[in-house]
Amino acid sequence: MKISVVITLKKDVLDPQGKVIHQTLDGMGFEGINEVRQGKYFEIDTKENDKKKAEAKVEEMCKKLLANLVIEDFKIIGSQ
Amino acid sequence: MKISVVITLKKDVLDPQGKVIHQTLDGMGFEGINEVRQGKYFEIDTKENDKKKAEAKVEEMCKKLLANLVIEDFKIIGSQ
Repeated sequence: MKISVVITLKKDVLDPQGKVIHQTLDGMGFEGINEVRQGKYFEIDTKENDKKKAEAKVEEMCKKLLANLVIEDFKIIGSQ
Repeated sequence: MKISVVITLKKDVLDPQGKVIHQTLDGMGFEGINEVRQGKYFEIDTKENDKKKAEAKVEEMCKKLLANLVIEDFKIIGSQ
């Protein structure tokens, strides 16, 4: 089963990369942008066929390696 | 309107970061992983309230700045 997970900075954490991208887009003439936030996306293809088990495993991977839980949140956005 | 977009390497493009994460997870005892692919995730908050227009604008941002269309694909995964 392939699990898709998104890792984003917590709301109150400053996102300098997002700010630079926002300024660059402004400079390119893209108006009307309030904010840009950047995060990471992972697709994890596992041999596990049970959706709940596969998602639980990926949650553990996020907690132990993929996400820095002090400043980041993670969310599973797809299982197929 | 806030648009969420994911940018991933095209299927046939080597993903060295994904490979290193895969090996690290293996080393941590996470078995049964076939593959790990890493990508970028953006949340773009725009003043545009029309969903179609907001999505079209973000697509243009992807084509012009956020994605390298030679090696990457992009997909809008949410509008709220």
